[in-house]
Amino acid sequence: MNTIGKIFTFTGFGESHGEAIGGVIDGMPAGVAIDLEAVQHELDRRRPGQSAVTTARKESDTVHVLSGLLGGVTTGAPIGFVIYNENQHSADYDHLRDTFRPSHADYTYTAKYGLRDHRGGGRSSARETATRVVAGAFARQALAHYGISVTAWTSQVGHIALPADYAGLDLSLVDSNPVRCPDPAVAAEMERLILEVKAEGDTIGGVVSCVVKGVPAGLGDPVFGRLSARLADAMMSINATKGFEYGMGFAGVAMRGSQALDRFAADDSGHVSTLTNHSGGIQGGISNGSDICFRVAFKPVATLMQEVPSIDSEGRPVVIKGRGRHDPCVVPRAVPVVEAMAAIVLLDALLLDRASRI
Amino acid sequence: MNTIGKIFTFTGFGESHGEAIGGVIDGMPAGVAIDLEAVQHELDRRRPGQSAVTTARKESDTVHVLSGLLGGVTTGAPIGFVIYNENQHSADYDHLRDTFRPSHADYTYTAKYGLRDHRGGGRSSARETATRVVAGAFARQALAHYGISVTAWTSQVGHIALPADYAGLDLSLVDSNPVRCPDPAVAAEMERLILEVKAEGDTIGGVVSCVVKGVPAGLGDPVFGRLSARLADAMMSINATKGFEYGMGFAGVAMRGSQALDRFAADDSGHVSTLTNHSGGIQGGISNGSDICFRVAFKPVATLMQEVPSIDSEGRPVVIKGRGRHDPCVVPRAVPVVEAMAAIVLLDALLLDRASRI
Amino acid sequence: MNTIGKIFTFTGFGESHGEAIGGVIDGMPAGVAIDLEAVQHELDRRRPGQSAVTTARKESDTVHVLSGLLGGVTTGAPIGFVIYNENQHSADYDHLRDTFRPSHADYTYTAKYGLRDHRGGGRSSARETATRVVAGAFARQALAHYGISVTAWTSQVGHIALPADYAGLDLSLVDSNPVRCPDPAVAAEMERLILEVKAEGDTIGGVVSCVVKGVPAGLGDPVFGRLSARLADAMMSINATKGFEYGMGFAGVAMRGSQALDRFAADDSGHVSTLTNHSGGIQGGISNGSDICFRVAFKPVATLMQEVPSIDSEGRPVVIKGRGRHDPCVVPRAVPVVEAMAAIVLLDALLLDRASRI
Amino acid sequence: MNTIGKIFTFTGFGESHGEAIGGVIDGMPAGVAIDLEAVQHELDRRRPGQSAVTTARKESDTVHVLSGLLGGVTTGAPIGFVIYNENQHSADYDHLRDTFRPSHADYTYTAKYGLRDHRGGGRSSARETATRVVAGAFARQALAHYGISVTAWTSQVGHIALPADYAGLDLSLVDSNPVRCPDPAVAAEMERLILEVKAEGDTIGGVVSCVVKGVPAGLGDPVFGRLSARLADAMMSINATKGFEYGMGFAGVAMRGSQALDRFAADDSGHVSTLTNHSGGIQGGISNGSDICFRVAFKPVATLMQEVPSIDSEGRPVVIKGRGRHDPCVVPRAVPVVEAMAAIVLLDALLLDRASRI
Repeated sequence: MNTIGKIFTFTGFGESHGEAIGGVIDGMPAGVAIDLEAVQHELDRRRPGQSAVTTARKESDTVHVLSGLLGGVTTGAPIGFVIYNENQHSADYDHLRDTFRPSHADYTYTAKYGLRDHRGGGRSSARETATRVVAGAFARQALAHYGISVTAWTSQVGHIALPADYAGLDLSLVDSNPVRCPDPAVAAEMERLILEVKAEGDTIGGVVSCVVKGVPAGLGDPVFGRLSARLADAMMSINATKGFEYGMGFAGVAMRGSQALDRFAADDSGHVSTLTNHSGGIQGGISNGSDICFRVAFKPVATLMQEVPSIDSEGRPVVIKGRGRHDPCVVPRAVPVVEAMAAIVLLDALLLDRASRI
Repeated sequence: MNTIGKIFTFTGFGESHGEAIGGVIDGMPAGVAIDLEAVQHELDRRRPGQSAVTTARKESDTVHVLSGLLGGVTTGAPIGFVIYNENQHSADYDHLRDTFRPSHADYTYTAKYGLRDHRGGGRSSARETATRVVAGAFARQALAHYGISVTAWTSQVGHIALPADYAGLDLSLVDSNPVRCPDPAVAAEMERLILEVKAEGDTIGGVVSCVVKGVPAGLGDPVFGRLSARLADAMMSINATKGFEYGMGFAGVAMRGSQALDRFAADDSGHVSTLTNHSGGIQGGISNGSDICFRVAFKPVATLMQEVPSIDSEGRPVVIKGRGRHDPCVVPRAVPVVEAMAAIVLLDALLLDRASRI
Repeated sequence: MNTIGKIFTFTGFGESHGEAIGGVIDGMPAGVAIDLEAVQHELDRRRPGQSAVTTARKESDTVHVLSGLLGGVTTGAPIGFVIYNENQHSADYDHLRDTFRPSHADYTYTAKYGLRDHRGGGRSSARETATRVVAGAFARQALAHYGISVTAWTSQVGHIALPADYAGLDLSLVDSNPVRCPDPAVAAEMERLILEVKAEGDTIGGVVSCVVKGVPAGLGDPVFGRLSARLADAMMSINATKGFEYGMGFAGVAMRGSQALDRFAADDSGHVSTLTNHSGGIQGGISNGSDICFRVAFKPVATLMQEVPSIDSEGRPVVIKGRGRHDPCVVPRAVPVVEAMAAIVLLDALLLDRASRI
Repeated sequence: MNTIGKIFTFTGFGESHGEAIGGVIDGMPAGVAIDLEAVQHELDRRRPGQSAVTTARKESDTVHVLSGLLGGVTTGAPIGFVIYNENQHSADYDHLRDTFRPSHADYTYTAKYGLRDHRGGGRSSARETATRVVAGAFARQALAHYGISVTAWTSQVGHIALPADYAGLDLSLVDSNPVRCPDPAVAAEMERLILEVKAEGDTIGGVVSCVVKGVPAGLGDPVFGRLSARLADAMMSINATKGFEYGMGFAGVAMRGSQALDRFAADDSGHVSTLTNHSGGIQGGISNGSDICFRVAFKPVATLMQEVPSIDSEGRPVVIKGRGRHDPCVVPRAVPVVEAMAAIVLLDALLLDRASRI
């Protein structure tokens, strides 16, 4: 299943070492003047080869929009686009044709389909997430019409973590360092850890936090289209994710109800807000007008630049060692992907909400 | 949106204080002999009024199956069912008609729909989850044909937690105590905590863990139908949930790749398994044949039996105090709901997988 | 698959001789004051036993709405309802348990599911359409807010047909006679034909025409959600239908483009309309503001009150004769079903259209 | 909405005068060796500029498959493809920028989206159907594994019609003449009529008939996924269609039930078939193993090579005359499109049916 969304939808295609990746954005509202440079800018943020903490694969990742715009404005027609693959080193993967790498999708794809594209992970490669970034960039430009913005950042790498409360962070600093952590001192620590891990031929996990600001109260659909459930679905569809939480999240289980309640305040104009935001901006699956904030856990990348014992497709023991170009930590490049998926979910929810009342 | 699933689907209806709740199970494969007592048994596990740690609301929660069976066997036709509401005390909610309870869905439903059913929370009440348990019980009986079983348990209440590894637990003990924790000693501690919290008119959160055994390798669909994403969606659609993680989850972010890899082993017959299960039984979104294990965080219930400051629909300050019958901790009764949602997702994935190959 | 619609959806359940039929209406916009008597009135129009031209099965067909309303107003929550079956004569079908009736669904259901509910046709019975009428009645009340009305009528029985152009008909007369033909003289002829056919133990087909008035320009979605395609899908989902056409339909294939064009006219206020309506109110799959008009062909009912040679499930020849209570012509009772399905499609299209522009 | 199908799906994009058209085929079963020349061959059958009876627009319509194959075999991954537009004469449409052509989608797209791509009809152009042919060609190759074949032909142009019964036709002759009518004598008449109409700057309609052979009994889903309904939906999604009928179709309304029944026959091996096929291979929405046969009505093309009075976007009268390159009769090139849509529906139904039984 390569489509996400209900009325604003994205359908992707493409493998790591195929000719191109791309997709179709459907349900984009008509009348949005698209800034294609801003779309490309989002892709550039996800692009490999940005810094020492990411993979050395070189890709310009240039998006070609093939339809859906007239004079730069969306027409309501589907937006097809492609990104050509440029720097495949498929030979790096020849030794894996008949080998299952541990904790990859090699074995499971083979179990499901009877065969797999072994070149660079094929469809299971995170390369596919570049197409989501394009779809997300279109969604963001529609959301901007309503004053809704999405910002994600690296909040943890290994054991180095920012405090859960983001109120003290200057989110304008996210892109100021290669790990995309808005606290420069913590960012430097994270960077050191990633480089240390990389030097060992090892990898490390992390957490991406995200906040969506400007969301009106009322988005999200009970019961099975809860905004929280749709965000969880979207985030857990990203490669290497292992967990999702919003608002107080797992830490909230140890709280008393009396501590956890978000008390209301109404100002003189009758505008309702809450004094705290343990709810993470969503109550009963519907946005309440506060910031929507959530966190996504990413595991350490499974491809190591060291020898790893494994098996081949006949069950015989083999030793493999990553030869391709891989990230020691996926989190810095996952930041724009999390933002993209959040934007896709939010725009869909915003459009669906228009049908709520007569 | 009150439907979940792609080809095995469940559509629910009903409010806490309406005449009935119920739903339609569609896509149930033909030819399954249904044990209706087993269906009712699952409902009984979720039923209010079971013990001192749950709400005192008395409901027999008797399921009436109206269609889809012939001589007790599924025919492929949709299964409609109702559960009549019996013990509504709608008057308990009269004082809330124009009041927004903090951290409930009162404000958000009103923001979305312009009105809300204030009686017992209406559609936002967890009473709705009883219908999921019915759908899940049907799904479990289909899964049993393939040797797939789903077991959930309370693994944390407040700060009292079982170790993450469930290998040492005797899961046959889950229902041996009112909190549904398979370790009797820890269960007793949890029960004490819940009763203490209840005595204070307060509430507490917890975690439900779940393991699905017997799943063949190959279930789940890349990219947007990952089994992990669909489980996350299903779990986060349950009332009061704040987080989802599978396998190593959030704890995995601090691990090195070299620690986290699940090494393969193949036995003499060529059967592939892994020596560890940090992956939680899912790799690349597809089951790998190991146990699928995940955890769901529940917040403390928002209805307190103590005075709480809030506002009315005009923004004026009011003081409210829960008058209905509420759980001090939702987790013990959430256990069968988590199992039901997992069964719904797994059966759908199993049926979808049949289309994977020519 | 027992669900139709994208955001306004209906999910039905129930067999002819089960305990009840019913369904769930989801996506009903909040804030519609529902006239439940009007809902029941639509059901009464479809009810068996109305006249000599319909089946003698007696059913009060009383709808019980179980959820989704507060004080008679829709809340945005799903509307669950049941209609209890009352007058089943299941013994009438005992002789069919192992027999396939020709041109029924007996053989195909068995081929698909490996078993079938033989009592009254089970899920394949047109009894199921009563639940659609309920869903359609809710949709109509929402459409009425926007001045949209749906009217169907019997335009052909056997070879007796009204002219294709409905401009000369007084549609207020549809319910003035048992065949639901708005021309009383033609209605009398149709009635005579049906009674004659019935006396022979035979059956006859017919056509239902339908017009939707008041539809604004812009409803329907290119490419695969064309209003014409969705109407065709909805109509061809009704039992016994064999064809669908809209506007000039099949007759249009013999026309020249120069005859078939609907020329525009714009009045002084800039309001655009067309001088003719060969397009049937839909151009490029999207409504153009003219009446939407279409026609649905129904085959003669396959259950005859005469001896018919057939086979049993072992392939042995048998002779069967209808013993139940069946309509000699399905068309008069199909009129409210066609209206209901049209209303469901139109409301869904109207709500979806709200997402078309930024 | 630019996606069709439930588990085998096609999502298209592209405008007549954009850079490219294309799409994503998802849910293609793994393990099918694809003959790309056969895919291109289907496109060539739909290509403009084939003969004097079609438009003179020159397009090579070369399909570029970008993903989803490994060594020419499907992997289960989505198949992305593009067809570059080559021979746009967008200047032919400059005069239409502010004009609504009668019986086109110009007005309705503008009404829906507030703007439209006026170049060659934009997304409403039948050029889009080329992408469906690609998807259909993939579906056909999967269906061929099961011995299922799809054949369509021109059965009527204007008033010149083949008899309804196709038993006497040699369907291997469909492509032997430019109108794609398998009876050479009738084909010659049809061709004469089209050239005559073309010489007048006028256009004419027609009917495409289609038969699907080799379909096993059991495909299609009651109630809302009837094979007949899904075929109707797919056919009515094709540009310029006005009607759909299957089996006896509209002519069946004048038949008695006793004439219309398809009597069963079982041979010595217990194989069930019917002596006639008024049902068109579908009973109760499910295939019965007989040929599935249906007919699709196409209106005369709305673009005339003669002067036509119309209005501009301000409602002022204008006179327009087609300047682009247009088909005088759409039917010959619609034949492969009808086949493609039928193949898409059938493969989806075949895959869905695998979930019918435990």
